[in-house]
Amino acid sequence: MNYILTTQCADDTGLIAKITGLCHQNNLNITRNNEFVDKDAQRFFMRTELEGKPHSEFLSQLRAVLPKGAKVALHDGAKTKVVLLATKEAHCLGGVLLKQFEQALNIEILAVIANYPDLEPLVKGFNVPFHVISHEGLTRSEHDKKVGDLIASYTPDIIGLAKYMRILSPEFVGRFDGQIINIHHSFLPAFIGAKPYHQAFERGVKIIGATAHFVNNELDEGPIILQDVTGVTHANTAQMMAKMGKDVEKTVFCKALQLASEQKLFINGNKTVVFS
Amino acid sequence: MNYILTTQCADDTGLIAKITGLCHQNNLNITRNNEFVDKDAQRFFMRTELEGKPHSEFLSQLRAVLPKGAKVALHDGAKTKVVLLATKEAHCLGGVLLKQFEQALNIEILAVIANYPDLEPLVKGFNVPFHVISHEGLTRSEHDKKVGDLIASYTPDIIGLAKYMRILSPEFVGRFDGQIINIHHSFLPAFIGAKPYHQAFERGVKIIGATAHFVNNELDEGPIILQDVTGVTHANTAQMMAKMGKDVEKTVFCKALQLASEQKLFINGNKTVVFS
Amino acid sequence: MNYILTTQCADDTGLIAKITGLCHQNNLNITRNNEFVDKDAQRFFMRTELEGKPHSEFLSQLRAVLPKGAKVALHDGAKTKVVLLATKEAHCLGGVLLKQFEQALNIEILAVIANYPDLEPLVKGFNVPFHVISHEGLTRSEHDKKVGDLIASYTPDIIGLAKYMRILSPEFVGRFDGQIINIHHSFLPAFIGAKPYHQAFERGVKIIGATAHFVNNELDEGPIILQDVTGVTHANTAQMMAKMGKDVEKTVFCKALQLASEQKLFINGNKTVVFS
Amino acid sequence: MNYILTTQCADDTGLIAKITGLCHQNNLNITRNNEFVDKDAQRFFMRTELEGKPHSEFLSQLRAVLPKGAKVALHDGAKTKVVLLATKEAHCLGGVLLKQFEQALNIEILAVIANYPDLEPLVKGFNVPFHVISHEGLTRSEHDKKVGDLIASYTPDIIGLAKYMRILSPEFVGRFDGQIINIHHSFLPAFIGAKPYHQAFERGVKIIGATAHFVNNELDEGPIILQDVTGVTHANTAQMMAKMGKDVEKTVFCKALQLASEQKLFINGNKTVVFS
Repeated sequence: MNYILTTQCADDTGLIAKITGLCHQNNLNITRNNEFVDKDAQRFFMRTELEGKPHSEFLSQLRAVLPKGAKVALHDGAKTKVVLLATKEAHCLGGVLLKQFEQALNIEILAVIANYPDLEPLVKGFNVPFHVISHEGLTRSEHDKKVGDLIASYTPDIIGLAKYMRILSPEFVGRFDGQIINIHHSFLPAFIGAKPYHQAFERGVKIIGATAHFVNNELDEGPIILQDVTGVTHANTAQMMAKMGKDVEKTVFCKALQLASEQKLFINGNKTVVFS
Repeated sequence: MNYILTTQCADDTGLIAKITGLCHQNNLNITRNNEFVDKDAQRFFMRTELEGKPHSEFLSQLRAVLPKGAKVALHDGAKTKVVLLATKEAHCLGGVLLKQFEQALNIEILAVIANYPDLEPLVKGFNVPFHVISHEGLTRSEHDKKVGDLIASYTPDIIGLAKYMRILSPEFVGRFDGQIINIHHSFLPAFIGAKPYHQAFERGVKIIGATAHFVNNELDEGPIILQDVTGVTHANTAQMMAKMGKDVEKTVFCKALQLASEQKLFINGNKTVVFS
Repeated sequence: MNYILTTQCADDTGLIAKITGLCHQNNLNITRNNEFVDKDAQRFFMRTELEGKPHSEFLSQLRAVLPKGAKVALHDGAKTKVVLLATKEAHCLGGVLLKQFEQALNIEILAVIANYPDLEPLVKGFNVPFHVISHEGLTRSEHDKKVGDLIASYTPDIIGLAKYMRILSPEFVGRFDGQIINIHHSFLPAFIGAKPYHQAFERGVKIIGATAHFVNNELDEGPIILQDVTGVTHANTAQMMAKMGKDVEKTVFCKALQLASEQKLFINGNKTVVFS
Repeated sequence: MNYILTTQCADDTGLIAKITGLCHQNNLNITRNNEFVDKDAQRFFMRTELEGKPHSEFLSQLRAVLPKGAKVALHDGAKTKVVLLATKEAHCLGGVLLKQFEQALNIEILAVIANYPDLEPLVKGFNVPFHVISHEGLTRSEHDKKVGDLIASYTPDIIGLAKYMRILSPEFVGRFDGQIINIHHSFLPAFIGAKPYHQAFERGVKIIGATAHFVNNELDEGPIILQDVTGVTHANTAQMMAKMGKDVEKTVFCKALQLASEQKLFINGNKTVVFS
């Protein structure tokens, strides 16, 4: 049996020795290990792949030797449960649905919720529940409440914004704090805001990109998970850039969900720790 | 109205002047142009994007001023018709189906033909005809004949081998000469043959790749269209490499079909000319 | 004999036919050709590689058939003359000096001018004249005047700012309009201004980059020539990013000079046309 | 004070706990740690960055708790001593010399030895000793003996073959077992042997590359350290590919030496473990 142990806590001396020592005492063999210490923030992060069967007291033993407030979790390889939000664009949503079909991601897509019905045929083709909650006639707060209630009914681990073209209310973001992953269609912090490909075209850049990030209450300002880029030339119009960028968005979004499903993602203030 | 003019012929002096002069006389405005001269082979290749309406004699006028045997064609932007062949793996097939759904490729997938039924739900979800022609109980020649007849009934422009794990008979290849695009799961010419990811793992390479190529009667030896790579480390098993490689295969296969649909691909002996 | 013909002018119908027709009449064989039309700006750009010997009237014949104000030039393959400006950092300067030594760039470095003496041993090792013009005790305008006069005495084609850590006066920029290429240590327009690697670290980006651009009188805002990037992780400090970024800066700066030396660079308003 | 501890031994349970426990007992704080277990070979590799001052018995204490035959070493951050061998090409050699000048690598180049005098001005410009040992009139064995004796007189940690275009005798390779790093101008295992860029051109590949590897007695077959690639097109001749490839060779060779200087490289049979 294989487990993944994740640890984050205030930094201290001997943390690795304490954690790995306890694993060894419990006959848990470490097959892979990643650590990181943020010296500025004095925070310690660790991800450990284990062979063996941890007994029921293992996590409380661990907490006992770690600094107060340590967050430890043991993952048994179960699929990460995901609800995806979308609007009208198919590429990021379809990319994840296809990856699930290929069994290339350790995730289970519980449902897709959209504010338009356009993507229903795509989602139904993959046998995933599809819900439309139109924003028309509702305040932002009302719409977010309805969407949030439906999400909550699925109790997902992660909410993936697959080009969900709505600004989220602080209430919504707070309700799912640390669980929301967005894909932004620019190489942040360049071209924050609307129409990034048009901005990129106007500026005459030679590379465009996409950014997956956790959502907090600063628009386009959450902790960055992953970025990727592709080259463009003077011959590419804003429309061509948008089309070329979709491939990057799809790839980056799928990889961010993969990292989440592999317990490799940690939020560290306004940044992330991403183990390879 | 927009057209793409493709020309290939023996090299000669003044070819560009002759072709562009004739376009100008016919009030066809050139908005984009690519040329290449293979000096070793003494071959000339050109792709020209035109605005305007060519009259019915344009191509014969063109042939009259070009060297004997010139191949010229005028494309009006109609979708490239594709039949896809597959076996059991979903990633390349699904990648193209999704791209078609996104309207990101100027192609029309007429049908998918597989030698196993596994991928039927995926294909049906995209409302594309799916045919199973099992190879069991048939000689290679018999199976290729049945598959070929079904393909021919669709009169496609391009036949895409989306991880079709069958060796094709010379008859089949000859029947669809210059129309078959394969995706090979290695960075050719490294790791020709079976199990390239296992070969890559055994050799300890630090980069793996995929290759789209036209199929001729040399196994894994046709004209290369496109290649891409991704980094791997000592920590990646052959299985992990295979999984990582699938993303590259999907991307490269889709881009090769895109190049074909944009009339940017020319076969030049055992090589290709690929305009950007 | 080989020549490169560069043309830029207002867009019009039949320009390619006119130019290539005139080449053909003059027994100039086109071996490579690139064109671009900026439809918004209605500007036409073309770069043509020619075999043959143009007679003395060729350019005036060309101007006669092109729209008024056309800029045409014929380059005979002579080395592009470059003066490099530097401060204390060796990587971009050394990168270009080494490339010249390798005969990998078609440039001739006429001199290096720095506002500190630190890089003299490096430059002298490559047998290139080195001048120090300290900015101490001088106003910006006085210093720029002295540096500008020394540059002007060399009559270079291009002035390369190899990490010249001085803000240039409008007079200096105007004096060498369209000739100054700078390397900026960020992926513009992200992290304009001072200490871009510290900004990148604080923001927690996962990719850093560098940008070569022509200098105009907007700080970090000139037409972008080339950009490249490299991945970073949570484990990289701002200092490590700066070190990793130097490789990208070196590469991008050298390639921008190479493009200039191959007559592949055109300024198009606040953008560039860069032929491949 | 900072140290790097490297460990390699037969795999066993609890190794990380034992090593990190001993570090903790000795008041050595772990700031960074990498481990890898090769399950097929049953080998364990670990690299640990430590703060603190290890006492004189630390390594023998460590050996006492590790499997028999364990190789442990403690590095105090001293520069890695390198002797470079070259022939006539400047790019890899110059790349490393420049990096040393920039203080971008933690290496000390003790000397350059070449079989031709061409590169003397470059090396002298960087104030590094340069020796010519011509191979003319000598058998391979005699030449290798003279070169090897001169190398041995410098007692380097690493011997870098900066495009040293000589086949090494088994005696030479055996004498400096595990110390020799070569740069090969192809993406191994593609295009083993002579003129890889010509082979690449003939095959019509769309990507070329370079490979840094340890040298053993199989030509072009030693453990691969690092590879990188760059795209090429139908328009690139073999000569252009060779020129484009030089940049990749230079980058890959410098990075391989950097990895060695940071104690991140381990030989594991015919493969390497390369910590990031």
